[in-house]
Amino acid sequence: MELTFGEILLWELLGTAALTLLGCGVVANTVLRKSLGFQGGWLLVTFGWGLAVFTGASIAAPSGAHLNPAVTIGLLAAGKTDLADVPAYLTGQLAGAFIGAVLCWLTYKLQFDTHDEPENTLGIFATAPTVRRPAWNLVSEVIGTFVLVLWVLTSPTVKLGEGGLPQFGNSALGYAAVAFVVIGIGNSLGGPTGYAINPARDLGPRIAYAVLPIRGKGGADWGYSWVPVAGPLVGAVAAGLLAQVLPS
Amino acid sequence: MELTFGEILLWELLGTAALTLLGCGVVANTVLRKSLGFQGGWLLVTFGWGLAVFTGASIAAPSGAHLNPAVTIGLLAAGKTDLADVPAYLTGQLAGAFIGAVLCWLTYKLQFDTHDEPENTLGIFATAPTVRRPAWNLVSEVIGTFVLVLWVLTSPTVKLGEGGLPQFGNSALGYAAVAFVVIGIGNSLGGPTGYAINPARDLGPRIAYAVLPIRGKGGADWGYSWVPVAGPLVGAVAAGLLAQVLPS
Amino acid sequence: MELTFGEILLWELLGTAALTLLGCGVVANTVLRKSLGFQGGWLLVTFGWGLAVFTGASIAAPSGAHLNPAVTIGLLAAGKTDLADVPAYLTGQLAGAFIGAVLCWLTYKLQFDTHDEPENTLGIFATAPTVRRPAWNLVSEVIGTFVLVLWVLTSPTVKLGEGGLPQFGNSALGYAAVAFVVIGIGNSLGGPTGYAINPARDLGPRIAYAVLPIRGKGGADWGYSWVPVAGPLVGAVAAGLLAQVLPS
Amino acid sequence: MELTFGEILLWELLGTAALTLLGCGVVANTVLRKSLGFQGGWLLVTFGWGLAVFTGASIAAPSGAHLNPAVTIGLLAAGKTDLADVPAYLTGQLAGAFIGAVLCWLTYKLQFDTHDEPENTLGIFATAPTVRRPAWNLVSEVIGTFVLVLWVLTSPTVKLGEGGLPQFGNSALGYAAVAFVVIGIGNSLGGPTGYAINPARDLGPRIAYAVLPIRGKGGADWGYSWVPVAGPLVGAVAAGLLAQVLPS
Repeated sequence: MELTFGEILLWELLGTAALTLLGCGVVANTVLRKSLGFQGGWLLVTFGWGLAVFTGASIAAPSGAHLNPAVTIGLLAAGKTDLADVPAYLTGQLAGAFIGAVLCWLTYKLQFDTHDEPENTLGIFATAPTVRRPAWNLVSEVIGTFVLVLWVLTSPTVKLGEGGLPQFGNSALGYAAVAFVVIGIGNSLGGPTGYAINPARDLGPRIAYAVLPIRGKGGADWGYSWVPVAGPLVGAVAAGLLAQVLPS
Repeated sequence: MELTFGEILLWELLGTAALTLLGCGVVANTVLRKSLGFQGGWLLVTFGWGLAVFTGASIAAPSGAHLNPAVTIGLLAAGKTDLADVPAYLTGQLAGAFIGAVLCWLTYKLQFDTHDEPENTLGIFATAPTVRRPAWNLVSEVIGTFVLVLWVLTSPTVKLGEGGLPQFGNSALGYAAVAFVVIGIGNSLGGPTGYAINPARDLGPRIAYAVLPIRGKGGADWGYSWVPVAGPLVGAVAAGLLAQVLPS
Repeated sequence: MELTFGEILLWELLGTAALTLLGCGVVANTVLRKSLGFQGGWLLVTFGWGLAVFTGASIAAPSGAHLNPAVTIGLLAAGKTDLADVPAYLTGQLAGAFIGAVLCWLTYKLQFDTHDEPENTLGIFATAPTVRRPAWNLVSEVIGTFVLVLWVLTSPTVKLGEGGLPQFGNSALGYAAVAFVVIGIGNSLGGPTGYAINPARDLGPRIAYAVLPIRGKGGADWGYSWVPVAGPLVGAVAAGLLAQVLPS
Repeated sequence: MELTFGEILLWELLGTAALTLLGCGVVANTVLRKSLGFQGGWLLVTFGWGLAVFTGASIAAPSGAHLNPAVTIGLLAAGKTDLADVPAYLTGQLAGAFIGAVLCWLTYKLQFDTHDEPENTLGIFATAPTVRRPAWNLVSEVIGTFVLVLWVLTSPTVKLGEGGLPQFGNSALGYAAVAFVVIGIGNSLGGPTGYAINPARDLGPRIAYAVLPIRGKGGADWGYSWVPVAGPLVGAVAAGLLAQVLPS
């Protein structure tokens, strides 16, 4: 089936909004002091983001549930997506990521208002490296995203239909599979930079942090913001090109 | 197949009893001092509630496993449930939630009897906000339930059959899917209010707490009790109305 | 297909041995000081037992993977198993549970030999209540097993074929489903007594503890040993009788 | 379908590289001080390795996703793999395991450079016993691998096709199943030796540790290195021989 620009944008927006609402939400839950999941640990964070992908991806099934510019660009590099559809995907993803972050802030409004280190809340929205050296931070993001996109392009649990729509069989299986991989990447490769592995997931909430009237907030760290955009795109293109030369 | 009033009530009662027995049980396990899961952490709590949904939903398969007035009302708002069946669903859910809470108390009877802060055991049965401001607490419950019901109404892993019965393909897949989403909502959006996202799950056990002879118990906090009823219903209606205007 | 006495015994023995090897193993891992999972928390224990069930049940697929006298007796009470097959099931389960416990001890031999409280290692093999009052301990075991067996008998993810063989569709789905329920029961109802919910799982390893030359071991607590046998059987029969009167 | 030497080597290399990248990665994340998962606990480690298997196995689907010499040799012992294909499997696995470990080091480069006990980083790459007595350490590895390979050979969730290719139905199910078993073995039997249960997973990264210019690194502990090779192979052969005599 052919999807219109508006349909792609709508489903990607809804799915990515669910993704960043739940994803930023789990970080808020572990970071904000008056939250029941305070200091809940890394496994809580990685399961949170993984199940955020699960929820958002199954909502966005009609558009193939990219939810991530790296997936869209990786499919393009592998020759599996129509270039004409890319703007609708990217627009929906970025708008959705922004909206999800706003909803996260509304959900945790009282916890933001009562947090004792309000200047340190950017981490709920955007990623940051534990050791800041952009070239190596880029490497971490490239490798993490390379694994994600190579898996999307090669795993038999993801079927790529016409027009670059990943088909998960529209069952819980495929969506669970991508959630498992995202949990796995978070567990294993998320330690250095917080695993953006998705430019929209980082940029949309970072913009939200910059514009929302969050009590006592700090800066949005724009100096680092190119890394979680460029790294995932480089990793995705590399995986897409590799997938083209693999035997099928 | 057409279900009678009694059959709907029976299956919803059994499933919701399993849900609150296991759900309240995991909180008891982490809160009560002489329990093996004492201070087991938020991920234990969210997996506990998620697998409670899994268990209860697969038991209640014949009635479509709503187990939650927000699901029933969301399906109604989306035009997917027959109004005539709603009373049977709601009655079964509330009665089941009460019975499950009673069974939880019996299971943990010795732990309740030996707990050193018995006046603080309401949290095993009913939700409470970490920062009490009902309007914002309501927002948290609305958003959490909106995600749940929108997912039920749009995910391809849930098929809505005749009479509003969600069909999970009667395999473990669909039930696991809803468990994953409930775990995800708990991980990510449960921090502010303890995520009732289900009026029966909160009200039934709260009534049980009020009437059971629990040693040294405190009050049932009726002043807050409208929030975990109203919030989920508002979120469910909003999701149901949105689902009606989404392209199919 | 008809299974011989020996085939039932063999598969139940293999599956139950895997169950108690992995189940007792996860407790050893969290309890023994020179073990990498030392103090790993309750969620580690419940996932450990759940995945022990997953592993053992998929190995024992040919015999229907009861692995638990409570499941066998619950199926009998529900009219779903042939009485003539029961002795083979029970014998295989008890022998397998003993063998699995011996293998657990061999796996952790050096950790047992270097543990600083060797007299407190019974808990690796057999369950014990946190507050000892047998009548209420029995209630906890009855309720936990009732949930397990009612789920086995009613969940559409478990199909009961001829001769009482649960059919899991021989896919990972059904086995994952029972693992999820066992994890859920552990998370939620395991706090008071350590959730035997399986007479063989408790009695077989208790016998192994009594006879193995474990360095510095304490007593086998035979005074309590009837509770994790009687409780599961009572819960199973209650669930079996209820299942007979439920509308199908 | 017949696979060429090169195709087997390629897919096993890609899959095993993903396996050790994510597997060593999760240990790096919990061990290195400037990592977000620092001290994340045993369940994080076991989920990390399990999802590493999930990711690598679904990438390596074309070659049957052995990813482990113990699986290859176990299939051979059970008469399920062609001897002529074994060199391609083993070569791909060992090369992939080495490459994955190098990528792990690149991902965590800054964390290695800033770690305060750089001489103690071998554990990120290779296993080590908590109590060093090779004969008993061998027993632990034999038993853990025996469970893994027996499960692969008997579980109905794994179908063995022609040429010894495990068929997971090419859905997420089979891959999730093997991940669950690997998580289970880690939870339950990984305490004494860190559960290599895979000679390539241990040897490949150990070689990488020996040759990479890791800042301040310690020795590669070659004296122990035969145990995580020999133990898994013995366990695999034992499981393969048992599988041959089991009734089918």
